[in-house]
Amino acid sequence: MENSGDRPIAIIGAGLVGMGWAIVFARAGRKVQVHDASADLLADLPDRLETALADLADHGLIGDPAPIAARITIAGSLAEALRGAVYVQESILERVDVKRALYAEMAPLLAPDAHVGSSSSGIPSSEFTAGLSIAPRCLVAHPVNPPYLLSVVELVPAEWTLPEAVDSVHALMQAVGQHPIRIARELRGFVLNRLQGVLPREAWALYEEGYCSLDDIDATISKGLGPRWAFMGPFETIDLNAPGGIADYAHRLGALYRDIAAERSEHAPWSADLIARADAERRASLPLDKLADRCVWRDQRLMAFAAHKKTQPE
Amino acid sequence: MENSGDRPIAIIGAGLVGMGWAIVFARAGRKVQVHDASADLLADLPDRLETALADLADHGLIGDPAPIAARITIAGSLAEALRGAVYVQESILERVDVKRALYAEMAPLLAPDAHVGSSSSGIPSSEFTAGLSIAPRCLVAHPVNPPYLLSVVELVPAEWTLPEAVDSVHALMQAVGQHPIRIARELRGFVLNRLQGVLPREAWALYEEGYCSLDDIDATISKGLGPRWAFMGPFETIDLNAPGGIADYAHRLGALYRDIAAERSEHAPWSADLIARADAERRASLPLDKLADRCVWRDQRLMAFAAHKKTQPE
Repeated sequence: MENSGDRPIAIIGAGLVGMGWAIVFARAGRKVQVHDASADLLADLPDRLETALADLADHGLIGDPAPIAARITIAGSLAEALRGAVYVQESILERVDVKRALYAEMAPLLAPDAHVGSSSSGIPSSEFTAGLSIAPRCLVAHPVNPPYLLSVVELVPAEWTLPEAVDSVHALMQAVGQHPIRIARELRGFVLNRLQGVLPREAWALYEEGYCSLDDIDATISKGLGPRWAFMGPFETIDLNAPGGIADYAHRLGALYRDIAAERSEHAPWSADLIARADAERRASLPLDKLADRCVWRDQRLMAFAAHKKTQPE
Repeated sequence: MENSGDRPIAIIGAGLVGMGWAIVFARAGRKVQVHDASADLLADLPDRLETALADLADHGLIGDPAPIAARITIAGSLAEALRGAVYVQESILERVDVKRALYAEMAPLLAPDAHVGSSSSGIPSSEFTAGLSIAPRCLVAHPVNPPYLLSVVELVPAEWTLPEAVDSVHALMQAVGQHPIRIARELRGFVLNRLQGVLPREAWALYEEGYCSLDDIDATISKGLGPRWAFMGPFETIDLNAPGGIADYAHRLGALYRDIAAERSEHAPWSADLIARADAERRASLPLDKLADRCVWRDQRLMAFAAHKKTQPE
C-alpha cells in the first residue's frame, strides 16, 4: 500500500471548525484541501487563517506560519477537495438533512480506502449515513473548539462503522497530535457534551435555590476546582485525593456523593424564568456589546495555557 | 477600634490544611499562631513549612521564605494560640464530637470580637456550635487544598451566625488574597463539593455502561473541557459560547442538556462492583506505590499553573 501520509486531507466546511481542522492537519505537515458550498466562506478563509496562525506564532505554539498556510489549498468543488484524499473531515452545518445531502454527494467521489469523520457535536452519524455505500467508512470525529488548542477528539462509530475505520482515524489523529477518544457506540450528546452538561446542571440548581450568585459559582470552579481539571480528569483527581487511591476515596466519600446525587433526581433546570434571571445577572457584569472582546480574552488565555502546558511534564 | 490587621491569626490544627492556612496568612504579612493537640504534628511543622515555602519560592510564587516563616509561631497551648487573635481558622479532624469539644474549649478563651472559621469540608458548623456562647461568631470557611495555590474559600453561615461575622471573614479573606464565596445557608456538601461531585457521577455512569475507558474519560476533561475551567466557571463558559450570551446558549442547547439530565435521574453509581473494576483499571495504569510520586507531580503542576495564571489578564 502506498504511504497514505503523502495523500491529502479534505476538509468540507470552511467555518470556524473547518478552519481549525485545516490548521491541525497542515501544522502536522499534511496537505489540506478545503471546500465549502459557500463561496463567501471560502473567499475569506485565507485572511482568517492568517490571523489564527499569527496568533499561534505569537504564543510560540508554531514556528513560521508561511509553510503551514502553503499546505492549505482551496478547492473549487467537492470533487476537487476529495481528489486523492485519504481522509475527509466534514465540518458543515449541524442539520441532518444538510449533512445527509452532502454524504450522498460524497459517496461516488470518495477514494475506496478513504474514511470520513464528522465534526458533529450531537447528531450521530447513523442519522445521515444510513443506506449509503460509504456508511461503513463514516463515523463521528467530534473536536473541541478550537481543535488546534484543545486536542481531544471523540470517535463515535455507528453500528455499521467498520472497526478498521475507527482504528485508522484513531491512528491518523494521534499522528497529527490530537488525542482521540474511543466511544463504544452512539449515545445522546456523546461523552464530551454529557460531561460538559453536568456542571451547569448543578450550578443552575444551586443558583435557582438561592445559595449562591452566578459569579461566586463561577469562581468556585475557576479559582478552586478548575485548575486541576486543566491537566487531570475526574478519575485521576479522586485517585490522587486519598492515600489508597480511587477505591479508598470511594469508600470515604462515595456515600456523601451518592446522597447529593439522589437529591437532584428529577431536577430539570434550564427553565425560561431561571434563564431570564441568569441572563440579567450576566449582562450586568458583562454587557452584550463586550461579549466579543471577552471571547478574544478567552482565546488568548487558552493559547497562553496551551503554551504553558507544553512546558510541563505529563 | 484598634487596627485588627496588627492582631494575630490563630490556626488550630497543624495538619496539611492548617499548614496551608498558616502560609496564606503569613504570606500576606499577618502574624500566625499555630496550635495542635498532637505534639508530633506541631514538632515537625517547621520542617514541613520549610519544604512548602521553598517549593513556592522555586516557582516564583513568593520571594524570600524566611520572613514568612518567621511570622508563624508555634503555640504550646490553645490559650496561647488564641491570645489576642482576631480570627481563628479551625482545621482539625472532620468529626462532629472532636470539633464540638474544641469549640467548647475555645468559647471562654476567644477575644470578644474574634470570629472563627472552620475548614470543615462537609459538616455544617451548626452541628458543632449549637448552644455555645460563641456560636453567632462561628461559620464554615472551607478552602480547597492547598489554599495558598487555589484561592477559593466557601463561607457558610449557620442560621445563627451574625451577618457581620460573614462580612468580617469575607473582608479578611480578600485582604489576604483569597477569593471568598458567600453561601446563603447551610446545605449538604456546601457548593464546592456539590460541583465537584457531579463530574465523577456522570463519568462513573459512562464507564459503567461501557461507553469509554477511565483514561479516555479523563482525557476528555484534561485535554478538552478542563483548560477552560481553569480560568472560567460554567456560566461564563456558556455565556461566551453563543453569539447572544447565556440566554442564547440556553435557547439553543437547553433542551439537549435537559434531556441528558433526565436520563440520569435515579442513577446511583459508586457501587462496590463498579469501584472494584475502576480500581483495577487505575492500578494497572498507576500502581499504588507510584501514587505518592504522582501526587508530587500534581502539586508541581498546580504550582506551575498558579505561576502561569499570575502572568495572565483577568
